[in-house]
Amino acid sequence: MSTGQESKVLELKALRVEDPFWSPEMDLVRRTVLPYQWRTLHDQVPGAAPSYCVHNFQAAARLTAKRAEAGEDFTPPDSTPRGFEMLPPDPASADPDRFYGYVFQDSDFSKWVEAAAYAIAQRPDPELEARADELIDLVCAAQQPNGYLDTYYILNGLDGAFSNLRDHHELYCFGHLAEGAVAYWQATGKDKLLRAACRFADLIDETFRDDGGCQGYPGHEIAEMALFRLYEATGEERYRDLAQRFLDRRGQRPYYFDAEHGETPAAPKDLRYQYHQAHLPVRKQKEAVGHAVRAMYLYSGMADSARLTGDKAMWTACRTLWKDVTGRKMYVTGGVGSTEAGEAFTFAYDLPNDTAYSETCAAVGLVFFARRMLQMEPKAAYADVMERALYNGVLSGMSADGEKFFYVNPLEVRPDACGKDPRKAHVQARRQPWFGCACCPPNLARLVMSVGQYAWTFGEDTLYAHLYLGGEVKIPASWGTVTVRTESGLPREGNYTVRFTENCPEAFTLAVRIPQWCDENFSVNAGEDAERWKKDGYLYLRKRWQAGETVEFRFDMSVRWIAANSAVWEDAGKICASRGPLVYCLEEADNGPNLHLLRADNMLGDMLVDKQLPEGQKYVEIDAVGIRLFGEQGGSLYDPYVFPKAELFTLRFIPYYLWANREEGEMRVWLTAKERPKIQRDELIDLDAVAERHPKEWGAQ
Amino acid sequence: MSTGQESKVLELKALRVEDPFWSPEMDLVRRTVLPYQWRTLHDQVPGAAPSYCVHNFQAAARLTAKRAEAGEDFTPPDSTPRGFEMLPPDPASADPDRFYGYVFQDSDFSKWVEAAAYAIAQRPDPELEARADELIDLVCAAQQPNGYLDTYYILNGLDGAFSNLRDHHELYCFGHLAEGAVAYWQATGKDKLLRAACRFADLIDETFRDDGGCQGYPGHEIAEMALFRLYEATGEERYRDLAQRFLDRRGQRPYYFDAEHGETPAAPKDLRYQYHQAHLPVRKQKEAVGHAVRAMYLYSGMADSARLTGDKAMWTACRTLWKDVTGRKMYVTGGVGSTEAGEAFTFAYDLPNDTAYSETCAAVGLVFFARRMLQMEPKAAYADVMERALYNGVLSGMSADGEKFFYVNPLEVRPDACGKDPRKAHVQARRQPWFGCACCPPNLARLVMSVGQYAWTFGEDTLYAHLYLGGEVKIPASWGTVTVRTESGLPREGNYTVRFTENCPEAFTLAVRIPQWCDENFSVNAGEDAERWKKDGYLYLRKRWQAGETVEFRFDMSVRWIAANSAVWEDAGKICASRGPLVYCLEEADNGPNLHLLRADNMLGDMLVDKQLPEGQKYVEIDAVGIRLFGEQGGSLYDPYVFPKAELFTLRFIPYYLWANREEGEMRVWLTAKERPKIQRDELIDLDAVAERHPKEWGAQ
Repeated sequence: MSTGQESKVLELKALRVEDPFWSPEMDLVRRTVLPYQWRTLHDQVPGAAPSYCVHNFQAAARLTAKRAEAGEDFTPPDSTPRGFEMLPPDPASADPDRFYGYVFQDSDFSKWVEAAAYAIAQRPDPELEARADELIDLVCAAQQPNGYLDTYYILNGLDGAFSNLRDHHELYCFGHLAEGAVAYWQATGKDKLLRAACRFADLIDETFRDDGGCQGYPGHEIAEMALFRLYEATGEERYRDLAQRFLDRRGQRPYYFDAEHGETPAAPKDLRYQYHQAHLPVRKQKEAVGHAVRAMYLYSGMADSARLTGDKAMWTACRTLWKDVTGRKMYVTGGVGSTEAGEAFTFAYDLPNDTAYSETCAAVGLVFFARRMLQMEPKAAYADVMERALYNGVLSGMSADGEKFFYVNPLEVRPDACGKDPRKAHVQARRQPWFGCACCPPNLARLVMSVGQYAWTFGEDTLYAHLYLGGEVKIPASWGTVTVRTESGLPREGNYTVRFTENCPEAFTLAVRIPQWCDENFSVNAGEDAERWKKDGYLYLRKRWQAGETVEFRFDMSVRWIAANSAVWEDAGKICASRGPLVYCLEEADNGPNLHLLRADNMLGDMLVDKQLPEGQKYVEIDAVGIRLFGEQGGSLYDPYVFPKAELFTLRFIPYYLWANREEGEMRVWLTAKERPKIQRDELIDLDAVAERHPKEWGAQ
Repeated sequence: MSTGQESKVLELKALRVEDPFWSPEMDLVRRTVLPYQWRTLHDQVPGAAPSYCVHNFQAAARLTAKRAEAGEDFTPPDSTPRGFEMLPPDPASADPDRFYGYVFQDSDFSKWVEAAAYAIAQRPDPELEARADELIDLVCAAQQPNGYLDTYYILNGLDGAFSNLRDHHELYCFGHLAEGAVAYWQATGKDKLLRAACRFADLIDETFRDDGGCQGYPGHEIAEMALFRLYEATGEERYRDLAQRFLDRRGQRPYYFDAEHGETPAAPKDLRYQYHQAHLPVRKQKEAVGHAVRAMYLYSGMADSARLTGDKAMWTACRTLWKDVTGRKMYVTGGVGSTEAGEAFTFAYDLPNDTAYSETCAAVGLVFFARRMLQMEPKAAYADVMERALYNGVLSGMSADGEKFFYVNPLEVRPDACGKDPRKAHVQARRQPWFGCACCPPNLARLVMSVGQYAWTFGEDTLYAHLYLGGEVKIPASWGTVTVRTESGLPREGNYTVRFTENCPEAFTLAVRIPQWCDENFSVNAGEDAERWKKDGYLYLRKRWQAGETVEFRFDMSVRWIAANSAVWEDAGKICASRGPLVYCLEEADNGPNLHLLRADNMLGDMLVDKQLPEGQKYVEIDAVGIRLFGEQGGSLYDPYVFPKAELFTLRFIPYYLWANREEGEMRVWLTAKERPKIQRDELIDLDAVAERHPKEWGAQ
């Protein structure tokens, strides 16, 4: 099955991001995040939760060498502890031969090397490459002769390998390894890690064969999309087929996880198979359920499957799931996962703001999913969501200085409540230096470093611009390479320019997304002679472009007041501010405490103010006229209602992704609105006038 | 220390409740709840969680008899299971010699017998008394020669007695036993159970003596107030002193519970000593913390202590804690306990409606605490809270048919969310037939059956009327007995009449509370010749009353729209309806689904409609003009805000305590208000007019 509109991702070497918004973000990752992560891999950051990632690889490499000396039959001594110890008191005093940390600590390396690869691909960095090579040597030294490469079981007994697919993240670690290996090979041409990943993939393929092999599948998805990627990189069809096998087995009865664990469900028990999206065969899944990151990774793999195998039922399932996620279960920030219990989806329109989970990784996963949907069919609806998640729910995961991270991204915070309210125990009002379970920071880093692969894709003699980034792109066309340079003022200004640097000998199509947030208010200054059509939210311009020819877009960047669907209880009567792709929020730093006493009124006017954080991030503050109720309502807890005293008040909104970079304080995205309900037949009811005609005292009968 | 205004509780035999509101409630307990509870004690209710209460007493009685035959040295065989099994598959197939259920199942009996006693005291009931006597015989047969009486340790090994005060509820079971024993003795004159309770109390007194005894104190409070009650009933000062000892030891360092358990905290770990209110010496406690029921029981015991020992620091602590509970941590229904985690208090003004715990028992406990504060000083502030909790948070615990019960009393419910949202897993949209941990139903029953002891107390030649109940009261006066008859229309009508049936030879004072909810709008038609003064919310009338003389009160029963203190985030912008002592709510049964789309407007008028449930409960419905927003906001999740379409809509409110007696559906107490903020200097701002002067499109700059 083909949509006829499939598009491809550019290699990072074929693009260059030079953008006033994204270049600083990428530099932050290059200069701060990558070195910082490297130190955490080595447990060299005082005060941060230790990773043990390098420690474990070192121990495994030593053991592997010993085994090689002793011959294949060597097994670890019985005294080797089985199971894992998350936090020994001090990494320095840890047993050098023992595994520490979560079962998935190996993936810390893989995510780091993937981000490092993206950095190197776009700008040579010999020092970074040397550090990566050194780590790759270590990782490969831990690999077993049969290709097995997971330090948890290498150190705790290889006989246990693949025995706990539900909880032990072995195939998850493999997936990240494959992603990192492909990226590093594409960036540097060095194939050592790629060969290691392929050998591990070969072992997994053999182990999980249909006839007589293990019939399991990953408890935490990612191997699916990683295997499709490995297939695309190497052309080895077995990897594609293995990915497809993993997808096909999911949800089959009897449940594989029952064979592993009996009826004991994974915590939390209510989610059971849903937690792993293993409750139904994937093609029958219609609702997003369970652990949100796992779901996003699975759906991304399913979209890859649809594209690479032409599986029509798979494609239908992807579209259904997409609709459920983005139409019923997504925060306005693009975050997903409404509850901490299982870090999971709950049910349609359940989007609590102050107890949201909205994990950074889940927003990253939604970007993955969206790009893969876009690759199947270029529809602005996908790109709108991708942009929403990227600029809001993803970027909010990192501090302005690149050294602190959010795992959970709430839409409303009272700092005092986080410490005291058990429902909010997972919510932090400040980004943290690192996590024992450090999935989010490196996930964010690898996405930011490869953002160009999300901004553009290409089809037959066509360049799709999904996001608005400045830079240079080289697209393979039927006659050779087309190079275009772009400039973008987003997200601060609404200008986006595409310039062709050489003459095109044939017609070439430029397809630029018209963002939902401009509500069709845009102008385009392009050669009038281009063939021109609109489809699915993209403006297509086709002609034989001449060198130096530019197409200038200008999108309306007015402040937009957004309401949630009326089915969202938690946002009833509330509105939020947005501008361009950015969702805004109120912070105590700008507005004082008691944000719940502020009222927004979308009719009272707003203005824009240029601002900058000390760390350098420039942003546009929205100043809107609103109302502040006075706090005093007598001293007692319950009193007869009287009209609250109030004052006009300038509400100062800051982009959501920049919150929590100043002093700790309250934050909220959704603000109670001054509602002006319109009675039936569009006749505006003046309730105040009605009230004046019935000047009853409260309570009088 | 004495306030000089202490008052006493009437014996139930000295009063008779004959009240259109309370008599049916009491009949419900008599006819339905008590027989139903009796069957649950015997595990005879199909489908209800088994109690094992009688099972355990039977097993213990057999073992006690065996021990008596074998002499004192008999110990249970080693194979006797230690620990408890909550739910064997079927009570019928349970091991007859084994303990089942929670450690505190004995208290099911004690609470039942207490409620039965109250029923018998007010109206002879030979059948009920026979059943009670039979159970009392069984319970007493289980008592050990040394007075010990707790089936958990009798069956699991007496050497473990008093070894886990923190978690094993032994002293809690003793407390309930003592309360039930006193009540039964006062109702029937039979002292078998009282003697058993005293023997157990004597053993505890000896075991917990200061010099060389166990230095512990109850993990779940109640023994304190029970011992004060036992002291008041028997005059035995050792019981008073033991209660005081328990109070005094609480919070001393080193913590006794550390000696029992080391540093292992009770779950949930954040609460540690706070959970048991053992974090500070009681006189230094200023904030209500921890498990809400335990807190209420402790504070009730502290108030008893202040009254019975004249401990001034204790009294100060009581007043401080009272202020914290009722001024910062109490729902508008009188419920307390904001979180399911530890069934506990959280922090000031944290009063979430949809995840409230607000256990029925905690509201019962608040009534206990309030009555004891009233006994120290007759202030309407105490009685207002007592009434609020009793008519709302307590009564909501029982269904209209008396057969189903709420443990948790939320102020906002979406039934679908309860099943799907882990934050609301503890919330039920329907009352349940019984609970394995069945504290609430019998607690409610014993309170309802003794409500007369909360309506009236007496001081020196003074009758205090705290609540408005119809009936007859005999008050001991210096010259003999004064009998008054009362009539009350509350909570449906605002009339309350007190009639003296005999001439008073001397001046006698009638002190009637003026309820906060009438806002001083009341009339009193009394002998003009009475000495008359107001103090602390009570109207005092003093004269030599003549036979037949009546005093008629009429309180304003207008609908009152209530707002919470502006510090309560969860109620910001919301109001609730109330009338007289009753808090009202909206139910889907009357208003359709999507209650979050309704808007209340306290200026648009309301009317009252008489209604009746099929089970017989009459109530006054409040019909108020409000607004209903239309649900459609396009199909998408986030859209530009437009003025919602709406219609005028009749909001139908039902008393909160009657909710969930019809088809399952949504409910909410707090409703979004149409706000009309008043700008500084009381100048009413017409925001709509301002908006018209600035007719901006949304988002335009």
